[in-house]
Amino acid sequence: MEKKEAITIQDIARKAKVSPSTVSRVLNDTVPVASDKRDAVLAAVKELNYRPNLIAQNLVRGKSMVIGVLTQDTASPFYGQIHQGIEQGLTGSGYQPMFVIGNWQVSEELVALETLMMRQVDGIIILGGNIPDERIKEVATEIPLVMTARWVKGLEQQCLQVDNVKASYDATRHLIELGHRHIIFVMGLPSIGDTLERQKGYYQAMQEVNLDIDPQLLVIEGNFTQLSGLLAIEQLLNRKQFFSAIFAMNDEMAFGAMLALYRHGLRVPEDISLVGFDDQDHTAYTIPPLTTVRYPMFDMGFMAAQSILKLIQGQAINLPLLPTQLIVRESTMRYQQ
Amino acid sequence: MEKKEAITIQDIARKAKVSPSTVSRVLNDTVPVASDKRDAVLAAVKELNYRPNLIAQNLVRGKSMVIGVLTQDTASPFYGQIHQGIEQGLTGSGYQPMFVIGNWQVSEELVALETLMMRQVDGIIILGGNIPDERIKEVATEIPLVMTARWVKGLEQQCLQVDNVKASYDATRHLIELGHRHIIFVMGLPSIGDTLERQKGYYQAMQEVNLDIDPQLLVIEGNFTQLSGLLAIEQLLNRKQFFSAIFAMNDEMAFGAMLALYRHGLRVPEDISLVGFDDQDHTAYTIPPLTTVRYPMFDMGFMAAQSILKLIQGQAINLPLLPTQLIVRESTMRYQQ
Repeated sequence: MEKKEAITIQDIARKAKVSPSTVSRVLNDTVPVASDKRDAVLAAVKELNYRPNLIAQNLVRGKSMVIGVLTQDTASPFYGQIHQGIEQGLTGSGYQPMFVIGNWQVSEELVALETLMMRQVDGIIILGGNIPDERIKEVATEIPLVMTARWVKGLEQQCLQVDNVKASYDATRHLIELGHRHIIFVMGLPSIGDTLERQKGYYQAMQEVNLDIDPQLLVIEGNFTQLSGLLAIEQLLNRKQFFSAIFAMNDEMAFGAMLALYRHGLRVPEDISLVGFDDQDHTAYTIPPLTTVRYPMFDMGFMAAQSILKLIQGQAINLPLLPTQLIVRESTMRYQQ
Repeated sequence: MEKKEAITIQDIARKAKVSPSTVSRVLNDTVPVASDKRDAVLAAVKELNYRPNLIAQNLVRGKSMVIGVLTQDTASPFYGQIHQGIEQGLTGSGYQPMFVIGNWQVSEELVALETLMMRQVDGIIILGGNIPDERIKEVATEIPLVMTARWVKGLEQQCLQVDNVKASYDATRHLIELGHRHIIFVMGLPSIGDTLERQKGYYQAMQEVNLDIDPQLLVIEGNFTQLSGLLAIEQLLNRKQFFSAIFAMNDEMAFGAMLALYRHGLRVPEDISLVGFDDQDHTAYTIPPLTTVRYPMFDMGFMAAQSILKLIQGQAINLPLLPTQLIVRESTMRYQQ
């Protein structure tokens, strides 16, 4: 299929009865142009329905006007909200996001990153993932770069992260204050930075009060999926370990835990209290609605977008630790002996 | 921040001790080049870590190598799965998707579409939305275009859709076969094409057996959100209308209905049977797991991507009606008088 013949600067110049360079000056808004000529050009642009070739224009200026986003998963609502934040954060800037996917696989992430570099994007936002720090540092010398949900030593000011330790401490503390002592922690993959920080917050809260309980015995591992949360709790119930509460380090694993408890006839929260992490869209509509930690997904994307624009404009950035918030709903209650 | 000085064809030519035009011939793979010269060029490319400016190259060829995707919502898991299908469908083609968002607002959709046109994308995929048919027909004369979840007269072969009437008939029929007669249909906004088709399927099934019931009295309207499903069922319960089953035309409204029933002490499925639509990721983990209609979101995205590639290559396409599948889980049971 052939594209329609493009309108050129010459066509506009002929129509507006001015020189092509006047058209160019008006369109690029570089040098002032007499207002009558300017009006004539704009009228011709409108009449001819002229659409400037943005790519060609920007290429001349050495800009693609694209922000590359290396994401991990486009189908997850967690990443989806970050994407929405990025898009909103770029609105009105003239930049468009281009998403490539890493799927949490270093090899795929490296290819995805290379794709962005080859497209000469003007800035890169990396959402989590496992690309080696060394490679990220290299890329950061070539191009403005912002990261979320990970720390790279030497690039701390370009890393956007939540206070995972405190978030996890708060969630565990909420259960402790309700009288729970045997609190299961469903952790994610230890290769992901968040996991160890959240484990640390859990240990801190547990060690303050549960002096006779070894919290290490209460930690079980999942891989962030609903199924892994279900299997973890199944395993726990099968080995008849005593517990009265569960803190899962993401909502998906909490959903899986909920189903495992339901299958075994255990009620939430009457028999077992349950806390998730993220506050995904769906958590207010589980049965019962889930107590969870709100992760500022949208804000994180929005701030990442605004920060990359600052970097492109040559401004310095120093990204803060974003706060989280415990959202108490109906899946937790006072421990009943 | 300045980008590193780019490596040029001249640098490679000097290193490989060949002429710049030989380098160009090797890189563009146009004319055969003696194998020793070819090897020297490739070695120099590797040594200098040369990265071709893809945008510039493709611009010369009149291609952006970008497929524009006009989507409605990047945070919804429904669209997320379609996006994943599109990305997989483009893998290996050299084309990258660029997503712009319409938010189901005609004005935003038109701006988003214009953004894609100005970027000279090579093809456009439109996911649902409300852009007037006339505008879509215009765009389709300028550029390869595929649509999902809507029909545009005259462009039927470029529209990818599920068989909504049959899908909805199947879901209603499932409840009828379980002995239910007073089946509430929670419809979405009537301005969306899917809504009226699904309502038609519901009426068809109801009218086959429920000759003494006016199904119009059993239809209530939501706006596809969880909250609207909750409010619809609240309203129904407040006016004390008798019903034993609910069929909601998307999963979100079914989730909202579930919470409304829970708040009123009604059990699913013992008191009320419930069927959703879409089979989102979460439906297998609701309490109880939700019976729903599987919408082929990933397949739709994948097929849309493959079809746009065919159109770009000048091949004809004739998109089929995609099948859906009823997934029976634990939210429906035989009607108990």
